Amino acid sequence: MTRLHDPELRGFASDNYAGAHPEVLAAIAEANDGHQISYGEDVYTERLHERIRELFGERSEVFPVFNGTGANVTALTAMLPRWGAVVSSKTAHIHSDEGGAPERVSGLKLLTVETPDGKLTPELIDREAWGWGDEHRAQPLAVSITQTTELGTLYSIDELKAITAHAHGKGMTVHMDGARIANAAAALGADLREFTTDAGIDVVSFGGTKNGMLYGEAIVVLNPDAVDGLIYLRKFNMQLASKMRFISAQFLALLEDDLWLRSASHSNAMAAHLRRSLEDRIADGSVTGLSFSQATESNAVFAVLPPGAADRLRESFRFYDWSAATGEVRWMCSFDTTEADIDAFVDAIGRELAA
Amino acid sequence: MTRLHDPELRGFASDNYAGAHPEVLAAIAEANDGHQISYGEDVYTERLHERIRELFGERSEVFPVFNGTGANVTALTAMLPRWGAVVSSKTAHIHSDEGGAPERVSGLKLLTVETPDGKLTPELIDREAWGWGDEHRAQPLAVSITQTTELGTLYSIDELKAITAHAHGKGMTVHMDGARIANAAAALGADLREFTTDAGIDVVSFGGTKNGMLYGEAIVVLNPDAVDGLIYLRKFNMQLASKMRFISAQFLALLEDDLWLRSASHSNAMAAHLRRSLEDRIADGSVTGLSFSQATESNAVFAVLPPGAADRLRESFRFYDWSAATGEVRWMCSFDTTEADIDAFVDAIGRELAA
Amino acid sequence: MTRLHDPELRGFASDNYAGAHPEVLAAIAEANDGHQISYGEDVYTERLHERIRELFGERSEVFPVFNGTGANVTALTAMLPRWGAVVSSKTAHIHSDEGGAPERVSGLKLLTVETPDGKLTPELIDREAWGWGDEHRAQPLAVSITQTTELGTLYSIDELKAITAHAHGKGMTVHMDGARIANAAAALGADLREFTTDAGIDVVSFGGTKNGMLYGEAIVVLNPDAVDGLIYLRKFNMQLASKMRFISAQFLALLEDDLWLRSASHSNAMAAHLRRSLEDRIADGSVTGLSFSQATESNAVFAVLPPGAADRLRESFRFYDWSAATGEVRWMCSFDTTEADIDAFVDAIGRELAA
Amino acid sequence: MTRLHDPELRGFASDNYAGAHPEVLAAIAEANDGHQISYGEDVYTERLHERIRELFGERSEVFPVFNGTGANVTALTAMLPRWGAVVSSKTAHIHSDEGGAPERVSGLKLLTVETPDGKLTPELIDREAWGWGDEHRAQPLAVSITQTTELGTLYSIDELKAITAHAHGKGMTVHMDGARIANAAAALGADLREFTTDAGIDVVSFGGTKNGMLYGEAIVVLNPDAVDGLIYLRKFNMQLASKMRFISAQFLALLEDDLWLRSASHSNAMAAHLRRSLEDRIADGSVTGLSFSQATESNAVFAVLPPGAADRLRESFRFYDWSAATGEVRWMCSFDTTEADIDAFVDAIGRELAA
Repeated sequence: MTRLHDPELRGFASDNYAGAHPEVLAAIAEANDGHQISYGEDVYTERLHERIRELFGERSEVFPVFNGTGANVTALTAMLPRWGAVVSSKTAHIHSDEGGAPERVSGLKLLTVETPDGKLTPELIDREAWGWGDEHRAQPLAVSITQTTELGTLYSIDELKAITAHAHGKGMTVHMDGARIANAAAALGADLREFTTDAGIDVVSFGGTKNGMLYGEAIVVLNPDAVDGLIYLRKFNMQLASKMRFISAQFLALLEDDLWLRSASHSNAMAAHLRRSLEDRIADGSVTGLSFSQATESNAVFAVLPPGAADRLRESFRFYDWSAATGEVRWMCSFDTTEADIDAFVDAIGRELAA
Repeated sequence: MTRLHDPELRGFASDNYAGAHPEVLAAIAEANDGHQISYGEDVYTERLHERIRELFGERSEVFPVFNGTGANVTALTAMLPRWGAVVSSKTAHIHSDEGGAPERVSGLKLLTVETPDGKLTPELIDREAWGWGDEHRAQPLAVSITQTTELGTLYSIDELKAITAHAHGKGMTVHMDGARIANAAAALGADLREFTTDAGIDVVSFGGTKNGMLYGEAIVVLNPDAVDGLIYLRKFNMQLASKMRFISAQFLALLEDDLWLRSASHSNAMAAHLRRSLEDRIADGSVTGLSFSQATESNAVFAVLPPGAADRLRESFRFYDWSAATGEVRWMCSFDTTEADIDAFVDAIGRELAA
Repeated sequence: MTRLHDPELRGFASDNYAGAHPEVLAAIAEANDGHQISYGEDVYTERLHERIRELFGERSEVFPVFNGTGANVTALTAMLPRWGAVVSSKTAHIHSDEGGAPERVSGLKLLTVETPDGKLTPELIDREAWGWGDEHRAQPLAVSITQTTELGTLYSIDELKAITAHAHGKGMTVHMDGARIANAAAALGADLREFTTDAGIDVVSFGGTKNGMLYGEAIVVLNPDAVDGLIYLRKFNMQLASKMRFISAQFLALLEDDLWLRSASHSNAMAAHLRRSLEDRIADGSVTGLSFSQATESNAVFAVLPPGAADRLRESFRFYDWSAATGEVRWMCSFDTTEADIDAFVDAIGRELAA
Repeated sequence: MTRLHDPELRGFASDNYAGAHPEVLAAIAEANDGHQISYGEDVYTERLHERIRELFGERSEVFPVFNGTGANVTALTAMLPRWGAVVSSKTAHIHSDEGGAPERVSGLKLLTVETPDGKLTPELIDREAWGWGDEHRAQPLAVSITQTTELGTLYSIDELKAITAHAHGKGMTVHMDGARIANAAAALGADLREFTTDAGIDVVSFGGTKNGMLYGEAIVVLNPDAVDGLIYLRKFNMQLASKMRFISAQFLALLEDDLWLRSASHSNAMAAHLRRSLEDRIADGSVTGLSFSQATESNAVFAVLPPGAADRLRESFRFYDWSAATGEVRWMCSFDTTEADIDAFVDAIGRELAA
């Protein structure tokens, strides 16, 4: 097969537009050749179990799966009885971007709450966390939060502890959609377990694809009492990889040294550089009509552009509208974004929005 | 990440125990770097569409997915209304090996039929194909066959045409689980479309993983009138890969030249060599107590061993019992099985079953 | 069996607390004895079909079921493909009172909108009616409204026409949850078809239980092109009554003369009497601290009471809190509510809230 | 509403073709008038709980529902985790007559076994009861048997005890579909608890409709440890009656004295009379070409007729083909079948099959 694309072309549409990190490809090659037991009894998956326990604590268990929707839906299904419901932000990926998979595959009811910044709080959770014992109401038995959020914002460790204490006090378990958990670790400057296991999180969807893997995510169970039947649920949710060694080997490439954190720190830094560069231009008056709609706490910048500007910029740089109605756009950085990419983009914005 | 396994160790447990073909890894590397639109709008997936149309005909459409269960369940869901049922062999993977995914994910009712060799016939189909219009009966609106079957047997082109003519005549569509479709093509010595599109098959699950890919299968729709909503169903069945370019590139590695057929021909040849070698030993009296329970028409050999023999052989070579009760075992060959592997195995069997 | 309860005791908790109308019981006795074909091929169900066509128009079809949740979920399932979603008010019974049945039984995604009065409008519908063709979003292909609403409010015929025109213009069909459709007809002073078929509604859940039946509701399809597979869906949703003649006979008791409308007019009048009596007392200063939180347009009065008052009143009269947080309560009237019941209740409220 | 049918016309098609017993109608009238708390907190449901405990033992709990499919599916759902499967006879109503409701509503996988007479045995159960811990196999965690069976046959108490001991020994619970449990009690001459609670059955679907109720069945839980979440599952399976007092009152009409047993004894006696009368005619040579395909142990007679005979008989008496291919027919007796009905039918058969 011959190359069909330009390997130098990058944009700001999504961390899913990036390819795989070279160290990830190298790990796949190492894990190749010879026979390994399929469906997870291979040596790479065994080693991944060990590494996950080192990172998240001795009670933790890892279940590699194919993709983020699969991780989220399977984790939540294992956390809830058939009559359970999930309290989440209305911007949560499980509600807004998974095509109804939680409802369709597992019959989960989502009880969603409007938030200003994609973050739940104990008070916001309580808008839907009520009605236990009432047979007419799907029982709110789990909370799902996203770290970092779909709006690029970040929960502090204290905020996470407040949520888990509140949820546990009401008999609810807590799931973290960690599609960008590496960006959170980098932004918090914290070990993984400080803001997961030690903060009371029960189950994490640990993201790999957005952080430089070809494919593959993992359900990491921090509190085994919070789940049931995961091995069966993964299979019948069609998330059990036969040649699982290749997902595990990719995760090992990320986690055995600090590749996961290096990549996430880099993409965070690129987003910060983009924001700062634009703020400088706003401050010096060379750019007008641009504002920011969310804090830039990870690898995403949310901005509001004047009518027409986004479409013109997209002739050279891919990115998505977040709200066509308000002119809000999302700019994502990834592990392969370069400072030169940012500077070229800032220059283009500068030309488009010159005062 | 460092290698943790012996790349020289191979067995006869499953074509899923094998790794990836080097040409497949090379294609992934070619497709890497730079940004590509996620979720299937990349150039590799576009090229795959073209290649599939060359192979299966102008009306065909391809939907890459993660795994075989995902391909089968998503295909059948798109083929059936909510009140539809599938007629299949009792040995079909969708019934016996998918943990109930068709029932749980999509509410599909399976109407299964006992077969001697894993193959349906018009007569066998009619055991469950009845009751249309009766609201008390799930409506049998699709037939699913496996080519080559889970028992290593092969449908001839005439047998396939008889099935599709019969099914279509009753208003049913026909799905082919082609997890090992390459082995079928090699065994039939036929072009792909001769025994699919031209034989009246409506939808195929086209297998990649068992034929040397890391992961990835594809739903190939031959008759677009037979399905509805596939793009939505793939997403909410959690089978939509974000970095789809890597599944498509692997398929291109198989399909752009004849790697898919070379590998399948080789694994078929290895199974034939295994069978013939053992038959020779039975014929010359050097092996006793061994018999074959199915025809060897692809890359699988089904045999019956005396009590205890399987366990002793497994000390050196991995393989699975098919029926512990009867002593039936399954020996699978894969693209990386060597003639030396077979000869060593035959020698071991010869020692175990020496007259 | 001997009577165990006081047949004179009535309250304001729910129109489900009432029993059956004597004319309904008489109809059951008439339909009894002898054998009738089960599952809907009896003469009473046949006659019901005729009567429904007289009331709703020649294209209409009726499917008796057991209860309101069954009617709503089965109707919406028949209206939507597996990838469809329903836009509804957040106070809709399908979202707030059916325990997640739409999600669990049929995998339906509900896209809910906050409303001040339980009523959708084209503008409110548009908050969730978008994203067609985007595989990441459950496709909004139906709107569900409740007439009269769960808050006792009423859509005018013009409001209904605006909704159906808007929805149809976007390719969406419209379902009316008519658990209290008789109260709507009475309040509008309109024929059934004027505010259903002629207003563009596609499918109605026609309520019987709250209007004096023992049990039984009916899905009335006004636009047969809007549904598919209803006979199968009713069966597998466990809503197919074997002795269907008894549901149909009850509906005939309501619909053959004007019992349905007499009963609904009466319960509406009782609610109006309750509201007016209390407003008189507020106006003359004899009652203080009482306000009304919704218009009284059917058989429900929504009021706000001072802290503690509701609990003290409930020592003599049953009714429900609507929001414990705000002191809002709901008072429902039914076909058997008497003027004396209202006067006694008003007196009790008068004593409790004496100025 | 005026009577539309002939109350003297009866046939042998189904015990669902019969109407309601007059004592059942009387109980409904007694329970009518005044307000009762809906959804099961009424005094009749409370009394039913007591009566059920008297009949089935102190640990038993009762959950009234609408119909038999609702009872079976809801019971089995409460007995099984999401990854559970049910072993049943291939003739079980849950497999052959519920339109796929177990699969569609609850995602249950049915593992069915061919039986000669509709009855499972430990040996037959073992054909599908295997594979625990294998993630690729839906886990067989419940057995469902029907008493009396769909073929009119009867499990002895010893046979039931053998099944429950075997199932419990393998970690499986046992459900009894008791749509005709009253016929079983009459045939066994045993108290209800002797062949349910005391025989190790965990959960019963207790039939009312086929034994003279208008509608209504009940899930009776004998072993509360065998179920979870039934109150929620009943609601979201759309089986929670708002005016539950009327289902409970009907059951009380059956159960407070021995109406349930009188009616069942009568219908059993009518079937025995039918069989004996025909056997007499076969013995004396006046009828030829008639044989019986199942033992007549309850209220059903299964017979095989010569080609054409069934259709000619059906010109005067309704009944169903069981297998058009073999000429097998089913004749059902009900509580209202008279000896004169039988004699007239036997005479007609005699004329049709005169030697």
